[in-house]
Amino acid sequence: MRIAIDAMGGDFAPKEIVRGAIDAAKKYDCEIVLVGDERKIRAELGGADMDTLHISIVHAADVIGMNEAPAEAVRSKKEASIVVATRMVKEGTCDAVFSAGSTGAAVAAAQLILHRIRGVSRPTIATPMPTPDGVTLMLDSGANVDSKPEHLVQSAVMGSLYAQYVFGIERPRVGLLNIGEEETKGNEQAKETYPLLKTDPNIYFCGNAEGRDVPKGNFDVVVCDGFVGNVVLKFAEGLAKTILGLIREEIRGAGLMAKLGALLLMPTLRHLGKRLDVREYGGAPLLGVNGCCVIGHGSSDAKSIASAIGVTVSYVNGKVLDQIRDALAKEEEETGRV
Amino acid sequence: MRIAIDAMGGDFAPKEIVRGAIDAAKKYDCEIVLVGDERKIRAELGGADMDTLHISIVHAADVIGMNEAPAEAVRSKKEASIVVATRMVKEGTCDAVFSAGSTGAAVAAAQLILHRIRGVSRPTIATPMPTPDGVTLMLDSGANVDSKPEHLVQSAVMGSLYAQYVFGIERPRVGLLNIGEEETKGNEQAKETYPLLKTDPNIYFCGNAEGRDVPKGNFDVVVCDGFVGNVVLKFAEGLAKTILGLIREEIRGAGLMAKLGALLLMPTLRHLGKRLDVREYGGAPLLGVNGCCVIGHGSSDAKSIASAIGVTVSYVNGKVLDQIRDALAKEEEETGRV
Repeated sequence: MRIAIDAMGGDFAPKEIVRGAIDAAKKYDCEIVLVGDERKIRAELGGADMDTLHISIVHAADVIGMNEAPAEAVRSKKEASIVVATRMVKEGTCDAVFSAGSTGAAVAAAQLILHRIRGVSRPTIATPMPTPDGVTLMLDSGANVDSKPEHLVQSAVMGSLYAQYVFGIERPRVGLLNIGEEETKGNEQAKETYPLLKTDPNIYFCGNAEGRDVPKGNFDVVVCDGFVGNVVLKFAEGLAKTILGLIREEIRGAGLMAKLGALLLMPTLRHLGKRLDVREYGGAPLLGVNGCCVIGHGSSDAKSIASAIGVTVSYVNGKVLDQIRDALAKEEEETGRV
Repeated sequence: MRIAIDAMGGDFAPKEIVRGAIDAAKKYDCEIVLVGDERKIRAELGGADMDTLHISIVHAADVIGMNEAPAEAVRSKKEASIVVATRMVKEGTCDAVFSAGSTGAAVAAAQLILHRIRGVSRPTIATPMPTPDGVTLMLDSGANVDSKPEHLVQSAVMGSLYAQYVFGIERPRVGLLNIGEEETKGNEQAKETYPLLKTDPNIYFCGNAEGRDVPKGNFDVVVCDGFVGNVVLKFAEGLAKTILGLIREEIRGAGLMAKLGALLLMPTLRHLGKRLDVREYGGAPLLGVNGCCVIGHGSSDAKSIASAIGVTVSYVNGKVLDQIRDALAKEEEETGRV
């Protein structure tokens, strides 16, 4: 298996990307192709033995920045790292592409180069949200807004297959993110989506999920509009950072005994942090395009990158793409919807 | 000032409601009218000196449950505690009503009995979300879904006045909850709302707020559709509970040294908990109706109830209702929108 990594994408690229790739190369059974400015990548690789690690470099002269209009940039910058990396998947020289750069650019590159799977109207970003016992897959978390009910149904089918074949959950519990448990609750979008999910033979629909059900892990897959998913995802990140900052502030201002307490409690808190750390889960797959594309957080450090590459490896190994293609063909046949 | 309390509303009613009311009566300069089953309320009051505390009881024979259809229940159950309490505000015998019972019933009672303020299309629930330095007022947090842009503008105007006259913020920073900072980002609703907020002379609009800005406190007032607000609010509650549960679980499973550490650190963690505890902020005002109506969380304990009554006292003292009436009349004149 060969994975193309956008070495220039991310707040700490290429340094943390290259470091994460080295860690992943040691840990996972895959070849890694670092795509980007060869000179810079080589400098970050330092003395790493590329042959033993199965790491290679493909030069890409350009980069797409965070503030560029994604589709336009992908069309005009043919030699941008994310474009070159995605092209390698299209051409079959790589099995997957990973980027921690502009999410919009990664999504645009995937749509324009890999194209959508037949039957998929809109690709969707599936973000694993940590829960006490694992993760809840929340999708869409920002690829599309103002989704139609049938888009949410497609998300449910794709997310369910991903949870099944990548997380190994036999019968993923699918929920519709809503403001109440009852079928009649919600906005127009949710009210129209509920009966479609309820009667879909390809998923195990367990009803409405309320906001609190996401962190509690009461569902394996939660579908929502990309607007809501993106707000929730960023809210969770902001809240986690705020709480950590406050804990530090409180301990700094506390007495000697409390400081000693913090020291003694540190391993426990660190273990807890690990359980809740999104970096442990790293990458969010873009589901619905003809190729494995995984998106990382812009602020990813080496650890996040390595774990995201692990996600990418599982994604490829799970053969989820074939499952999604089959399921959507079946879905089309059964429901008459495209 | 007299406040009507729905003594029968809430998961732990009437016990915690009555206890909270007693605490509030000691703390705040107000008379409290407990509305509900007189026998039960009297039993909870025990030996409390009602005269000294300025607490009285108004009997209401009925209760509206959490799962009843709100508007229907309000119309048919004339003697339900929330209906009787709201009627007292309408009749002028009380200055405000507070309930920790069914939110839908409280909103329906306020709409049907107090009616909307002229110029307000939809009342909105304004929930204070804790931040490191105070609170961010998030509205709407669940009264309405599929809001039109002009509804969000009204929310912004009302929320801004509330933050000014109740929180004492001279020029509240108003944000529009969205998925990016740029004006062009978002769903149709957000894209249409942005220019209206930007040109509204009655608020200090500071642009789009992303999910992370809410817990960080980068805005004083954040407006959003009630669907999004409700999901975020419940997500925050679920996450807080999940994290606390995990901390307990980790400490239970930890070694002796870590347990000692937890003990030493406890006062610090407790202080932090207090800073982030929604119970410290208690009540969420329903803005846009002709009367002060404050809604509490169903799971409120005595402490939450007392602090929510404190919120209600500040709401009445701030004379926010008059401000909102004036501002919306002005808004109507200036923009030609109703």
